[in-house]
Amino acid sequence: MTRYEHLARLLAERIEQGLYQSGERLPSVRSLSSEHGVSISTVQQAYNHLEDRGLIQPRPRSGYFVAPRRAQPPLPRLTQPVQRPVEVTHWDAIRELLDARHSPEMIALGGGTPDLTQPTIRPLWREMQRIIQHEETCLSGYDDMAGTLALRQQVARLMLDGGSALTTDDIVITSGCQEAISVAVRAICQPGDVVAVESPSFHGTMQILRGYGVKVLEVPTDSQSGISLEALEMALEQWPVKAVILVASCNNPQGFIMPPARKQALLSLARRFDIAIIEDDVYGELAFSYPRPETIKSLDHEGRVVLCSSFSKTLAPGLRVGWIVPGRWRDRVLHMKYIGTGSTAVVTQLAVAAFIRNGHYHRHLRRLRQHYQRNYEDFRCRIRSDFPCGVCVSRPQGGFLMWLELPESLDSVCISRELRAQQVQIAPGTIFSASGKYRNCLRLNYASAFNEQTARALRLIGNVIAHHLAAQAGA
Amino acid sequence: MTRYEHLARLLAERIEQGLYQSGERLPSVRSLSSEHGVSISTVQQAYNHLEDRGLIQPRPRSGYFVAPRRAQPPLPRLTQPVQRPVEVTHWDAIRELLDARHSPEMIALGGGTPDLTQPTIRPLWREMQRIIQHEETCLSGYDDMAGTLALRQQVARLMLDGGSALTTDDIVITSGCQEAISVAVRAICQPGDVVAVESPSFHGTMQILRGYGVKVLEVPTDSQSGISLEALEMALEQWPVKAVILVASCNNPQGFIMPPARKQALLSLARRFDIAIIEDDVYGELAFSYPRPETIKSLDHEGRVVLCSSFSKTLAPGLRVGWIVPGRWRDRVLHMKYIGTGSTAVVTQLAVAAFIRNGHYHRHLRRLRQHYQRNYEDFRCRIRSDFPCGVCVSRPQGGFLMWLELPESLDSVCISRELRAQQVQIAPGTIFSASGKYRNCLRLNYASAFNEQTARALRLIGNVIAHHLAAQAGA
Ligand SMILES: Cc1ncc(COP(=O)(O)O)c(C=O)c1O
Ligand SMILES: Cc1ncc(COP(=O)(O)O)c(C=O)c1O
Repeated sequence: MTRYEHLARLLAERIEQGLYQSGERLPSVRSLSSEHGVSISTVQQAYNHLEDRGLIQPRPRSGYFVAPRRAQPPLPRLTQPVQRPVEVTHWDAIRELLDARHSPEMIALGGGTPDLTQPTIRPLWREMQRIIQHEETCLSGYDDMAGTLALRQQVARLMLDGGSALTTDDIVITSGCQEAISVAVRAICQPGDVVAVESPSFHGTMQILRGYGVKVLEVPTDSQSGISLEALEMALEQWPVKAVILVASCNNPQGFIMPPARKQALLSLARRFDIAIIEDDVYGELAFSYPRPETIKSLDHEGRVVLCSSFSKTLAPGLRVGWIVPGRWRDRVLHMKYIGTGSTAVVTQLAVAAFIRNGHYHRHLRRLRQHYQRNYEDFRCRIRSDFPCGVCVSRPQGGFLMWLELPESLDSVCISRELRAQQVQIAPGTIFSASGKYRNCLRLNYASAFNEQTARALRLIGNVIAHHLAAQAGA
Repeated sequence: MTRYEHLARLLAERIEQGLYQSGERLPSVRSLSSEHGVSISTVQQAYNHLEDRGLIQPRPRSGYFVAPRRAQPPLPRLTQPVQRPVEVTHWDAIRELLDARHSPEMIALGGGTPDLTQPTIRPLWREMQRIIQHEETCLSGYDDMAGTLALRQQVARLMLDGGSALTTDDIVITSGCQEAISVAVRAICQPGDVVAVESPSFHGTMQILRGYGVKVLEVPTDSQSGISLEALEMALEQWPVKAVILVASCNNPQGFIMPPARKQALLSLARRFDIAIIEDDVYGELAFSYPRPETIKSLDHEGRVVLCSSFSKTLAPGLRVGWIVPGRWRDRVLHMKYIGTGSTAVVTQLAVAAFIRNGHYHRHLRRLRQHYQRNYEDFRCRIRSDFPCGVCVSRPQGGFLMWLELPESLDSVCISRELRAQQVQIAPGTIFSASGKYRNCLRLNYASAFNEQTARALRLIGNVIAHHLAAQAGA
């Protein structure tokens, strides 16, 4: 952290703790400079930063003042999805979202792309160069169906961080987490089966279920503790559920980490009703706290949990390298992997393996975690100052996605269309429900470094929401 | 072609045409040397080569003689599969085959791997190096669902060679041809549907059908002209067939190219019964004759034909880059692609695009075509001299696979097991049938340059077959 960032953080904490009250004048630049033994320009930078975050306001010729105190936005409420199995819809809205990610003018706060600008990722490409130079002949042939051994070894090491001791035979490499989930669903389910999911939940997973003719049972989910076990239990009593799919660590879209005791309770429930758990851990390594949370998989001793993950969120989605730990479904998973894509490209697998083996991966993760946490704080401040009251905001514990619940009457599909016309992309809530719920919700991506442009985009979002609210009130 | 190869070819032709009769003495090394104006050692190399191929035999101190004339082996008969829809089996045998490809001692004549040692492929890796150096930032993000535009442009150019004028929007990039077929089947069929295939046909396709609960109707197929249109018509009258899948150009496993008139007739049949055609063109660019055969797709003006292909047979399967031309099923194909793998890795796509754009691809293809044709001739000669009578052999017109039909009573599963113990891998015929037919057939891969080792392997195969035949006759 630079000097000015350190100072800014200190001041932000004092404001947060109420040591400087709303509307109060802050120390002059000169006095702070001598108090902290830093240069005038460092203090000025710190103040600029706090101003950008909306925490303080300058007044001409009188210095800086604490911005009017705004309460922390409330959390979204426990969700209340339709309580019966439904077929998934909304493919068109998702295609619109996915297609928009390639417009260069757009400020993309709607997608699932991580920050790709961190310098700690560069050794990945150097490793790939080296592999092409030295191992050209290994790159050409058909790979082992389960994936390159060198990579499975490294993935086994990573899985230790989440609490699982695995052998290379327990791991099958996939073309991203999407293929891992896809293969898991086809290995476990038949068309017509019912699968329970968190609600809201990742649109890609729901589209997989739709594509294979599997029905979705959306389960009420709390924005801080995750899927409601009480609601899930009731659902399992009522419906012939085959599996539950969830993102229990650094959830997409809400950002929560399910507490360990609840993970354990979920596993017990799955055993009682003899259902499979498909654990999507694609964000699990991006928890703000260290060490990373333990996976549900780590609690499982009977191969009931199938873990799916990838390097798309921690390295680069363009690599298409992921993995699955198929537990008791290994044979069927291999068959589904074979018929889906045969095997995975070799050069990308070897590059990732070398990147991990040579220590670059953990360095990169450390940096990403700090980066995302800082961005989240910046976003939170901005939303607090720029968004109208009544907007509920989730409090992510990792990853780079947050979930907003607007007053019931607002329509995020309209709002996102208006914003798109102004080159700001958000994800409307509807795509996170199988049944078209969450029209008043939206998801924001805070992966990219907070800057002028982002600040402007958030202001714009706040304005559009305020405008819609006012229009409703007037109507 | 080198001088000695040229001379060897000339002599082989003369033997073939009967200008030199079986048992006849060939000209001395010295006289051939002066007749053709080449060195003594060139003639000697040519004679060695013909000897390796089993066409001539040396006799101590008397020179070379034409080997005892063996008739060209007969063609396999029109196949007679079960004439009703069945469920596919035999996954275990395929896994055995696929796993064996990684044993380094094995002489692998059973797999589908192309020759990877041609120097004309090297620019591919240089292009990849360059791309990593100069376009690092383009490689990281999520790709367009349909694939990288630069590659789709090049694929559109290639498709012209097969007779189709397409735009980049008509093409979707996939992770190999396997994903292309998989996506096509899921876009067109529902579980329980019936799909017609050539019999014998590629095991990967049949496993896809099995994986999605689609039934297979195996249609009698001629080893030179392809699927029997008469049998197909009868089948279409009798069963509710949704689609037909075929490898019409350089078939796997038989090597035929369906004549253009039959391709046209097939399309008319498909129109009459309103079924889809999934055309697997993965070997189409490897036809021995130039220009390459036209695709069925090129005859289709209503989007009824879905073409699937990849660079696995012409470049390197480890790249996992293929494509699909989805015709009227574009939206469903994109959905299936999205839910299966999301998108395809970027760095491999860009490398292939640059390789084609810079002229390396057509150079490489030209070399491969010659290489495979030469290998095929070497194999054919060897089989003719080393295999017992009564073995029928297909006559490939392209690609690197040939199909052998042994006398009815022989069991290629046993034979392949015996051969494996001696480090020779072949593909038993059963995996090319949904219903376990072709136990007396096998497929050989002649992709790798013919050498001592291959000659030994073929001799071994011939011996084991002869041994089984003798045992049968004795029993
Ligand atoms: C929760 C979740 N699972 C899976 C995926 C897909 O990951 P990949 O890009 O590795 O296929 C995503 C991507 O957005 C995701 O958010
Ligand atoms: C006829 C046929 N189609 C498709 C494939 C699969 O190709 P790919 O490796 O590109 O997935 C093969 C590979 O053996 C094949 O022989």
